[in-house]
Amino acid sequence: MKAFEIEAFGIDNLKLVDREMPSPGPGEVLVRLKAASLNFRDLMVAEGTYNPRLKLPMVPLSDGVGIVEQIGSGVTRVKTGDRVAGIFMQRWIDGAPNREKAGSALGGAIDGVLREYMIFQQDGLVAIPDYLTDVEAATLPCTGVTAWHALFEERPAKPGETVVIIGTGGVAIFALQFAAFAGLRSIVLSSNNEKLERTRQMGATHTVNYRENPDWDKTVRSLTEEGADHIIELGGADTLPRSLKAIRMGGSISVIGALGGGDPNISPVPILMQTVRLQGIYVGSRTMFENMNRALGLRQLRPVVDRVFPWQNVQDAMRYMQEQKHFGKICLQF
Amino acid sequence: MKAFEIEAFGIDNLKLVDREMPSPGPGEVLVRLKAASLNFRDLMVAEGTYNPRLKLPMVPLSDGVGIVEQIGSGVTRVKTGDRVAGIFMQRWIDGAPNREKAGSALGGAIDGVLREYMIFQQDGLVAIPDYLTDVEAATLPCTGVTAWHALFEERPAKPGETVVIIGTGGVAIFALQFAAFAGLRSIVLSSNNEKLERTRQMGATHTVNYRENPDWDKTVRSLTEEGADHIIELGGADTLPRSLKAIRMGGSISVIGALGGGDPNISPVPILMQTVRLQGIYVGSRTMFENMNRALGLRQLRPVVDRVFPWQNVQDAMRYMQEQKHFGKICLQF
Amino acid sequence: MKAFEIEAFGIDNLKLVDREMPSPGPGEVLVRLKAASLNFRDLMVAEGTYNPRLKLPMVPLSDGVGIVEQIGSGVTRVKTGDRVAGIFMQRWIDGAPNREKAGSALGGAIDGVLREYMIFQQDGLVAIPDYLTDVEAATLPCTGVTAWHALFEERPAKPGETVVIIGTGGVAIFALQFAAFAGLRSIVLSSNNEKLERTRQMGATHTVNYRENPDWDKTVRSLTEEGADHIIELGGADTLPRSLKAIRMGGSISVIGALGGGDPNISPVPILMQTVRLQGIYVGSRTMFENMNRALGLRQLRPVVDRVFPWQNVQDAMRYMQEQKHFGKICLQF
Amino acid sequence: MKAFEIEAFGIDNLKLVDREMPSPGPGEVLVRLKAASLNFRDLMVAEGTYNPRLKLPMVPLSDGVGIVEQIGSGVTRVKTGDRVAGIFMQRWIDGAPNREKAGSALGGAIDGVLREYMIFQQDGLVAIPDYLTDVEAATLPCTGVTAWHALFEERPAKPGETVVIIGTGGVAIFALQFAAFAGLRSIVLSSNNEKLERTRQMGATHTVNYRENPDWDKTVRSLTEEGADHIIELGGADTLPRSLKAIRMGGSISVIGALGGGDPNISPVPILMQTVRLQGIYVGSRTMFENMNRALGLRQLRPVVDRVFPWQNVQDAMRYMQEQKHFGKICLQF
Repeated sequence: MKAFEIEAFGIDNLKLVDREMPSPGPGEVLVRLKAASLNFRDLMVAEGTYNPRLKLPMVPLSDGVGIVEQIGSGVTRVKTGDRVAGIFMQRWIDGAPNREKAGSALGGAIDGVLREYMIFQQDGLVAIPDYLTDVEAATLPCTGVTAWHALFEERPAKPGETVVIIGTGGVAIFALQFAAFAGLRSIVLSSNNEKLERTRQMGATHTVNYRENPDWDKTVRSLTEEGADHIIELGGADTLPRSLKAIRMGGSISVIGALGGGDPNISPVPILMQTVRLQGIYVGSRTMFENMNRALGLRQLRPVVDRVFPWQNVQDAMRYMQEQKHFGKICLQF
Repeated sequence: MKAFEIEAFGIDNLKLVDREMPSPGPGEVLVRLKAASLNFRDLMVAEGTYNPRLKLPMVPLSDGVGIVEQIGSGVTRVKTGDRVAGIFMQRWIDGAPNREKAGSALGGAIDGVLREYMIFQQDGLVAIPDYLTDVEAATLPCTGVTAWHALFEERPAKPGETVVIIGTGGVAIFALQFAAFAGLRSIVLSSNNEKLERTRQMGATHTVNYRENPDWDKTVRSLTEEGADHIIELGGADTLPRSLKAIRMGGSISVIGALGGGDPNISPVPILMQTVRLQGIYVGSRTMFENMNRALGLRQLRPVVDRVFPWQNVQDAMRYMQEQKHFGKICLQF
Repeated sequence: MKAFEIEAFGIDNLKLVDREMPSPGPGEVLVRLKAASLNFRDLMVAEGTYNPRLKLPMVPLSDGVGIVEQIGSGVTRVKTGDRVAGIFMQRWIDGAPNREKAGSALGGAIDGVLREYMIFQQDGLVAIPDYLTDVEAATLPCTGVTAWHALFEERPAKPGETVVIIGTGGVAIFALQFAAFAGLRSIVLSSNNEKLERTRQMGATHTVNYRENPDWDKTVRSLTEEGADHIIELGGADTLPRSLKAIRMGGSISVIGALGGGDPNISPVPILMQTVRLQGIYVGSRTMFENMNRALGLRQLRPVVDRVFPWQNVQDAMRYMQEQKHFGKICLQF
Repeated sequence: MKAFEIEAFGIDNLKLVDREMPSPGPGEVLVRLKAASLNFRDLMVAEGTYNPRLKLPMVPLSDGVGIVEQIGSGVTRVKTGDRVAGIFMQRWIDGAPNREKAGSALGGAIDGVLREYMIFQQDGLVAIPDYLTDVEAATLPCTGVTAWHALFEERPAKPGETVVIIGTGGVAIFALQFAAFAGLRSIVLSSNNEKLERTRQMGATHTVNYRENPDWDKTVRSLTEEGADHIIELGGADTLPRSLKAIRMGGSISVIGALGGGDPNISPVPILMQTVRLQGIYVGSRTMFENMNRALGLRQLRPVVDRVFPWQNVQDAMRYMQEQKHFGKICLQF
């Protein structure tokens, strides 16, 4: 069977190689991959900026969907022919995160899904709602779960609350869709008016072009009584200082995108004086994934897929991601 | 000014009397009533079954909406001309309930709103969303807040979760509307197929006629993976034993309607073995009311008003409520 | 190897039999039992009153401690020579309970620990604090975890809060010890003054003899501002109605002992009017067990062992439990 | 009556002036001050570094204890002769913080307690446990409540969890005392070995001299399984980056001291990757104060008073605080 390996850092060094066909042991499941999706983390892993000490060669990508081809002895959670996704951290089933669970992240701590066949522990899989295409389903494991976790698993957003969503990347678009079906008021920020127009069509209550309107915290304050209840903070060091001005006293900021460059210059003073909560969100558990799937199925919500590449063209897909023009997810089809 | 008083228990003993026009002291607000709504509790109070030791004469009814006519010194929360509702427990502003707060319930612990003018402490009032009529707004203080509290303030229901709503009374209909806008799956129970049809039009995901289908717990189980996540228990002793079969392990039952007659025969065994939570819900705080208003305003949700009587005809309205044919709220217009 | 089997219901029908020595497969662990403890549930299982449809023959008892004798391939959580306890529900590792997890309870849903050797999945074991004897450690899996779960995992009791503990059985004594080291005020109820004296020596803040003082709810109210914050309800239908009078508005009752006979006559009215939470507690997860162990170790708290029998004398131990004279746990030594 | 006023910024510009004796209106309470305590915030207020736009003249200090001298009409919560403390934010009674509540902070947003007599709204007072001296009680409103809030009101610390306490100032010492009586494991950091010795005598489980041992995060990691569960972060920008290394995945950092100088250089990356929660703590509500008092009374815990000055010598007291040699609180006696 074929697999991609990072042999040396750099997108150009991804190699399509032959690997032996694996066979499932007790409790294990052989999955034939059908679709995958890209996250910004995959780019960083490939280029060596995520973790320069990763042991190479490694198979990249965390998000994959496939069909159960064969099951090992003792497997009860899935059967041959089921459509499944691997969960991001293979051992984060439930409860709070810890080091052991974090040490099982696909396409980082352990080998990922960019291959034709893959062995999973049965506990590392979730069933996929029928109404979704393979490619749509492949957007869920990292991006969908992260947005879900931020909005509904830590301090659940209540109907009528205001959530500020920074950007229009994968997590942002999921957060917008979740906000719309959960009765939240959303304020979406982007520098691109066309993208903002699309978010309004998807149910954004308000939009702000932060390039035209750099004091967007004031706009948020003017649209709310005392500031936003919740901010999906995807801009990292670039936007966090302003998020601390846009949040209401006692509000909650989900720290997700930590990737913005520049000089992180965050003072603890506003965290204290505003009694704000900053909550780091690093994807989520299988239970959160299942909770999300249940909600998706109820409303038959469709993830936004920007573009689909053949999986062999993963390097093109990665370069397309680098251009940052996409809206929604970039996917691969096997 | 005119007011109704319960001079002796029994609906027939409600008397329209003259009372002196009150004048607001420091921190107080004079409100001219415009609309009120009836709750089953008001019937019980009038008939002496709610609390036979209530000191008479008393002015009944908890839910009223009006216009600020005059403010006392130091009043900053409202101004003349504002449209406001009194909160159910005048001193439950925020936080957890306690005896002092519960001792300030309108139309029970203290005099109620069935009168032309009334003095409130400024803290005992909330602003009313503009888009609502007076009569619609008068449905909120007890009924709306109870449904909101049950779904979103104790263990907040997450999108995709299943909530069973027992009956089609005021709290049930609000719970259904809230469930629809918050992305919850709802299963509504009633003995009346016409009413069930109306709930489907309002967004009920499933309906069950519990007379035709007395084993409704099995239906709930068949419609869910492991039972309902949440039950809005409005049937009291009549339905609670079956609710304990319909709930999933670890689920939550909001105990609201405690009024069903018959022999309460609740064993603690299923509470234990199902690790269920039974949570008593006794209306809610001003903060919950404000949270609800914010959500109502976002979606411009319209409360369901069954019928409006002139306020002088309160006895007719109460007798109409006794017939139990209504769907939604019975209101009074001043 | 030797094991006890329930061949027919009735304590007398427990049989010591020979079973083949098991050998650990992948992910499995062979444990040589060193100590066990009895719970009232074990009596009910043996007599057929817990679940008359249990498939016989079965090995009883949920709570056992032993030494890892051998590990299967892929086992990383324990090594040979480790001292471990089996968790009550073998598959409740973390998060909320569900049917699958509940279906893995030792000595009930699946075979128990009353045998010389036993195979566990590695995930079904916890390490035992060094300072505890085998017999002390054997008191933890059901009884200790239940008390811990009730006090600290649902709505964590805060220092200074008042907890009423009904009885002096295993869970009650653990709850008392936990209350003392967590800065809680405890009120212990028993019908036996000698036992109450012992609880005072162990740190009970107040004690009430409910036989001499049947209106114990009034005593609780007089000792507190508005009633107890928390009640560890171990009396079942016999005491729950009075617990609903002793609890403060907004307080929390952990429903654990559901075994009291008599006529369960629980009205939902006080649950509603007091806005009380009744929370069923059915043991707990491995994470809760580990949380408890960490606290035990910090204070080197010693579980109270009433009496130790040789494991072959399990029938004597069960009959001793039936007499209900014990204080703390009844244990078996292998 | 006498009062101190800040007429211009700078400790030297504090002036003892005559003010008219106030008289309580409806709902108001006249309190004769008996003791006060200093917080670092009081120094900053006096020097103009807290908020340079404060309107002068103003009466400084937030923490005062006194005797009810006279009550206005309608006052039911206290009576003449009661010993009371003013709550830090006069309008934060309960529930979550907001702008209105924060706008009522004594000795900052509004005039403070450094005067012989003061008028409070009855809701802005709490009763003081009898066993405390006036001076001890004066340590509670800001410092005690802040430590309590951080440990028990946001994500309550469970027995057995590890809390790192940075420093030996007022909040730190309260946190240490609370940790000891709530069954927590504490690790106290200071640069002063004598002070560390005193914290060990008060129940600190471990101590670290961060000057001798600048990599204190490694020590914390070696003393725990995966890092601290909770950090009472009083060092601000100076220590927060290292706290983010010492915290376990999923742990919680209470951001309190935001006053450390230097270059705040906090990257969001570890917040995300460790899924850490940073929770700003800005004192707390009256309910939290009452919860704390209940716990204090149960164990008759004595606040640590470093030194008491006559209230007229407030400038000496402030200069003594600037030397930073104290351990526990600096108080004033009237």
